Formats: sequence, structure tokens, C-alpha cells
Amino acid sequence: MVRIAVDAMGGDHAPGPEVLGALRAARSLGIEVILVGRQERINAELAKHSDLGDAPVRIVHASEVVTMEDSAAKALRNKRDSSIRVAARLVRDGQADGVVSAGNTGAVMAIAKTVFGMIPGVERPALASPFPTVKGKPALMIDVGANVDSTPKMLAQFAIMGEIYSRLIFRTERPRVGVLSIGEEEHKGNELTKTAAQILRNLPLNFIGNVEGRDLYTGNADVIVCDGFIGNVALKVSEGLVDVIKHLLKESLSATITRQIGYVLSRSAFQDFRKRVDYSEYGGVPLLGLKGVCIICHGRSNENAIKNAVRVAAEFASGDVNDKIAIEMAAAVGPLAASQAV
Amino acid sequence: MVRIAVDAMGGDHAPGPEVLGALRAARSLGIEVILVGRQERINAELAKHSDLGDAPVRIVHASEVVTMEDSAAKALRNKRDSSIRVAARLVRDGQADGVVSAGNTGAVMAIAKTVFGMIPGVERPALASPFPTVKGKPALMIDVGANVDSTPKMLAQFAIMGEIYSRLIFRTERPRVGVLSIGEEEHKGNELTKTAAQILRNLPLNFIGNVEGRDLYTGNADVIVCDGFIGNVALKVSEGLVDVIKHLLKESLSATITRQIGYVLSRSAFQDFRKRVDYSEYGGVPLLGLKGVCIICHGRSNENAIKNAVRVAAEFASGDVNDKIAIEMAAAVGPLAASQAV
Repeated sequence: MVRIAVDAMGGDHAPGPEVLGALRAARSLGIEVILVGRQERINAELAKHSDLGDAPVRIVHASEVVTMEDSAAKALRNKRDSSIRVAARLVRDGQADGVVSAGNTGAVMAIAKTVFGMIPGVERPALASPFPTVKGKPALMIDVGANVDSTPKMLAQFAIMGEIYSRLIFRTERPRVGVLSIGEEEHKGNELTKTAAQILRNLPLNFIGNVEGRDLYTGNADVIVCDGFIGNVALKVSEGLVDVIKHLLKESLSATITRQIGYVLSRSAFQDFRKRVDYSEYGGVPLLGLKGVCIICHGRSNENAIKNAVRVAAEFASGDVNDKIAIEMAAAVGPLAASQAV
Repeated sequence: MVRIAVDAMGGDHAPGPEVLGALRAARSLGIEVILVGRQERINAELAKHSDLGDAPVRIVHASEVVTMEDSAAKALRNKRDSSIRVAARLVRDGQADGVVSAGNTGAVMAIAKTVFGMIPGVERPALASPFPTVKGKPALMIDVGANVDSTPKMLAQFAIMGEIYSRLIFRTERPRVGVLSIGEEEHKGNELTKTAAQILRNLPLNFIGNVEGRDLYTGNADVIVCDGFIGNVALKVSEGLVDVIKHLLKESLSATITRQIGYVLSRSAFQDFRKRVDYSEYGGVPLLGLKGVCIICHGRSNENAIKNAVRVAAEFASGDVNDKIAIEMAAAVGPLAASQAV
């Protein structure tokens, strides 16, 4: 049985969604969940859900909590018994196969990097976010915010990691890898994307060249590579737009009685629709490049997001993704060094 | 009467949408429209709409057409009698007050820059796109694709131009200007945004610091400043997401008979909704920083987009936006030079 440690104290509404999401994952997915955090708080939450019956869930106590206000450096230096740190240690020490946290993203990344260490050949860990596409299979965008001012070589490393993740987790045969740019033509882009494209052409990837912002959703690419600043903007633009569309639709649908009746009849369509654009269905975003499995969730994650993040962590761990990244990074050292001159 | 020159040959489906959009603008908005392009093609289109009656529309012949495949340099050098070039000359020579084109964006920008010249103090022209917000008033994002690898000083110039445009065209009292970044805190961002923020703090603007991708739609900022690479990605991510959402909703709403009936009853809500997220309602995007009015439309613009672009061009021209940009750029020369050291 795969064992996933959940940082029970991380999210904006912790530990409620963390405990319920973990319980549901443990019950329905056959995953052992280790809830890490203040024992009495977690027990109080568990008591509310005793009706759910038995599930393979246990608690590991951690006395401290990293808040959203803590800097990554402070969380790392001063809170050595924080829930996320204790959870990461369980993974390092072989007592868990992966960790899930909805806590302070900067702190979680710094702690995971310190506790797990990096896969040789990877300069920086990167966040890989799935986006729903019209064609059904999600597109993976990497990096969505772990790094800014990335170098072309870092983008090439993101491409290698993302390609493996897409292959192993989304079972894409020969993932099409694109560089996010502002036009499909080779001469379009900025210094970073043009140099990265030159490197990518020389790697053993199914590299399709430049893709555009709309290709996050078209399904024309399986892996979309970009600097974390761009990826984070793209992610937040999307979240903001989904929110505004829900708001506008609700407003329009309640404007007249006829529309309200129409809404009642077609409500299930909206539930379908929400599910398909709802980020909580994807659960969380893997941090790739570390010697350990770490899934980062949105601070405002609900129990569904946590449950799905536990599932993603288990798939990530069972797929031996990190071993395969290590092997392919070792093989890419030559071509990447040759691109030094670029 | 304001006179707007429309590049009748520019768009993907030219001259159909250009001619019909121009006719509608001329009839309903009291604007004189000059259709520029191949006379016989334009006349053939006009003949199809003789039922619309008289409108202040006239034709200026231009023998050449810039295609989407032409490079900007080639269009500039080799096609001196192109429809966009002839239209821009009408503005330069005082025979029109502004130009609208749905043609090859790179070529239109290069030709407008060459024919009009730049406002002193502006290094590069920038595209300023409105985004619909939850609060009703649009947010203006500048630059959405005219420039990549912008410098911090260029971002400051974009801010000055966007602020004036927001004030004069959207009648925003004291526009809140933000820098697009990946977190609200001052230390978040990349080298470009952090340095630009330092400069912006010293300019006489209502500068609110960093904003995030979701703020394109929240209405928390009136003017959002960014490099054109980022802005273009944000714009195209939004367009792609709106397309996928329309597609998913349509699919969900036609899945069962009950849902179909619901859809029929609430259809007007969707028409409302489409109108509010439809980019053609904004018509086109002004290119700021030039000594002339130029509105750039999407290649796939329909007649509604062209009509609205003609309206935007007329408002831009009547508002004396360029004169005011020239005055405020002259006043900002000192502070911008002082920021040289930054």
C-alpha cells in the first residue's frame, strides 16, 4: 500500500479540508495517509467524521506550523518541527512515499528541496501544472512559478522532466513538447525562448517548436515549457477568468424567471462544466526535480482537491517518475553541456 | 465629422467584414469611413449591402495587399502601395483622423511607426488591450505584444501612456496602475518587474505596486503594465480559455433532452454572457506612442469587431490622446532620466 504524508496544517482553512480529503482518499483509493500536524487539532477533525468508518489513516505529531506570512528562509531556519518539515522527513526516511501540502508555496518548495535534495543534473525544481484541453487529455505546463529569470538550459531541463511526467502519469505515447511563445514561427519569441528552442531541437524529444497561450487548452501540445514567471501569470489569468465567467453566467442566468427555470433544467450541465474546469479535480501540482515526491496544492484547496492531490502523489510515487528523471537527466548531460556554447 | 480610414484588405476574410463593419459604423455612429484597398473588390462588397441605404463611406484605391505571410520588413520595403500604407498616409496627410486594420500585426505596426513617427520620449509603441472585469469597467493591459525583452524604462513609458488612455477613453478618475507580477508582495517578481516598480514609485502616477494574473478580471487595477511577451501570452490564454469554455458548455448543454430544454429557456443568458466575454465588443487594440491613431484588430475579426474598432479609433482621435501623451512624456523625461541609475 502506498503511503502519503499530508501536511494537515498547511492550507488557508487547515486542518478541516486536509483531514476530510485525506480520509476520503484513504477510504476510496486504498492509500495509507499519514496526517502530520498538531495531534489534538487533527483528532478533533477526525472525530467529526467518525461516521465515515475505518480508513488507513494515522497521525504523526508536529508542534509547529508555517504560516502564509513566513518567509521561506525563516520557515526553513526557525521552524524545524513544522508540519511540512516533519512530513518531508517521513519521505526522506522511507516512512512515506510522498508528501502533499497546501501550505505556503515558497516555504514548501524550500523545505522539500533541503530535505529531499535535487536529482543530479537538475539545476532547479519546477512546478508542473496540468491544464484541461478540448481534446480531453490534459496539457502539462512546466514551470508555473517555482523559478523566475530562468536560463535556456533550465527550460531544457523542465522539458525533459515534463516529458517523462506526461509519459508516465498521463500515459501519453510520445509527448509533443512545445515552448510557450507569442507565435508559431521560429523567429517569434524572446531571447530566452529562441535560445531554449535551439537546445531543445538537439535533445531526443518530440519537440514541436513554439506554441501559443491558447495551446494550453487546444490539446495541440502535451508539454508546454516556460519560465515560472510566465507560467504563473498564465495559471492565474486562467483561474481569474474561470471565476469571472462563473460570476457572469450566474448573474445572467438569474436575471429573469424564464432563465431561472432554464437554469434549473440545465443545472447538471453546469455541474459537469464546473467539474471540467475546476482545478480541484487535478488536486495539486507536482514539484519535479527532487529526490522525493512533493505535491503542492492551492492554499484555498477544498477536501476534493486534497483527496485528488493524495491520488496524484500516489501515482507519482508508484510510477517511479524520479528514478526515470534521474536516468534521462544523466543521458542529457552531454547534449546540455554541448549547448553551453549557445 | 471624425474620419476613419479602414484597411479593407487586412483581415483573414477581407474585404467582407471590413466593408460591412465600416458601413454599420458610418450609419449608426456618425463617423465618415474611408475604405482603403482594391476598388473593384470593395465596390463588389458594397453592392451586396445596398439595402442598408446611404452612409458616409468613400473608397480610396490601393493596388497592393500585405498578406499574413509577408515579413514586416518586406511589407515595408516592397509594398509601398499596400492598403494599410495608403490608409496610414491618409492620416499623416490630414485626410483621416485614424486608421483601423485587421491585417498582419507586425507589418501594421512597422508601417504605422514609419509613416506616423514616434511621440518624443517614447522608445517603442505598445499595444493596449482592454479586459472585461467583474466590476464592469475594463482593465487596460499594456503591452500585449508589440515588444519583447522590454527594459524597465520602457515599462514605465507604457504605464504613462496607459494611464492617460484609461483616463481619457474609459473616464477613470485616477487610474490605479499596477505591474503584472507573480505575487502582491514587493519582493515577488523578476528582475524586470522589480526594477520597473522602483521607477514607477517615483512617477506622478497612482501606482499600486504588483498585481497578479487574476487581476486582469478582478477590477483591482485600471492599468496593468507588462512586457509584450507576457501580455501576449495572457491575452491568448484568455482567448483560448473562452473558446474551450464555450465548447464545453455547448457539449454539456446538449447531452440530454432536459438540458436542451433548459438551454432554450436560458439562451438569452448565454447571449448576454457571450457578449460580455466577446473580444469583438472591444473592437480592436490601440497602438500607443505614435504620432497618429492606429487601431489593430484580430485577423479573424467579424463585422462587429470592425465596427467597434472604428468607434474606438474615433474616440481615440477625438480625445486628443496623443497630444496629452506628448505633454506627459515631456514632463516625465526628468524622472525617467534620473532612473537611469536604477
